[in-house]
Amino acid sequence: MSDYTMTVTVESGPAEAEEAIRDALAAEGFGILSEIDVQAALRTKIGEDIGVYKILGACNPPMAHQAITQDADIGALLPCNVVIRENRDGGTDVVAVDPTAMLSIASGELSELACDARDRIQRALDTLG
Amino acid sequence: MSDYTMTVTVESGPAEAEEAIRDALAAEGFGILSEIDVQAALRTKIGEDIGVYKILGACNPPMAHQAITQDADIGALLPCNVVIRENRDGGTDVVAVDPTAMLSIASGELSELACDARDRIQRALDTLG
Repeated sequence: MSDYTMTVTVESGPAEAEEAIRDALAAEGFGILSEIDVQAALRTKIGEDIGVYKILGACNPPMAHQAITQDADIGALLPCNVVIRENRDGGTDVVAVDPTAMLSIASGELSELACDARDRIQRALDTLG
Repeated sequence: MSDYTMTVTVESGPAEAEEAIRDALAAEGFGILSEIDVQAALRTKIGEDIGVYKILGACNPPMAHQAITQDADIGALLPCNVVIRENRDGGTDVVAVDPTAMLSIASGELSELACDARDRIQRALDTLG
């Protein structure tokens, strides 16, 4: 596990894990604004198959608005990504970016907001574990 | 301008700027895999209007594949975001995340790849300026 992510591993398959994390994130005020099927993209573009690997872009609208108001460039670091990845044991790794690591490269003014976002995402992950 | 981004400001409106940067990124091997209309999302969800603000997710498939192969968690930091933002002068700011800043929070092993990505995106931005 890398130190810029928060991870939970579940025994269920990717589809079930995705549904569970979507529900848990919604309960913390995060909607999914983007969805990238990396497996499909790499298969189509370069013929490589990395297994199920999806990037969900999670966004909490009031928090995003506050962040953009404080730093108009911050959209370059949004939304908070959550990777749904098939693992070798037939289970699924749910890997969320740590917003405090992400925002550490931006202005320090957003650190409180980043901590709040991290706590919310961690709670969402905890519901799966 | 923040130090985690690379920015170019153009006199054209957001639609024209978006078309230009999409073409320029394609010439550098980046496809757009996600598109978030932040203005629409915030207007719908919390009734705030921040003006045109769109996040394009740019991905270079061979580079993404190499990065994921080296660090399976790296998808949490992908794709490379490019913000299309209406500015007060009627022009458009095109704000790309600097991949070297982004990957500085991940493993140092990817720094060469990050530099390559930065150079490509910078060249794409330069075609607009």
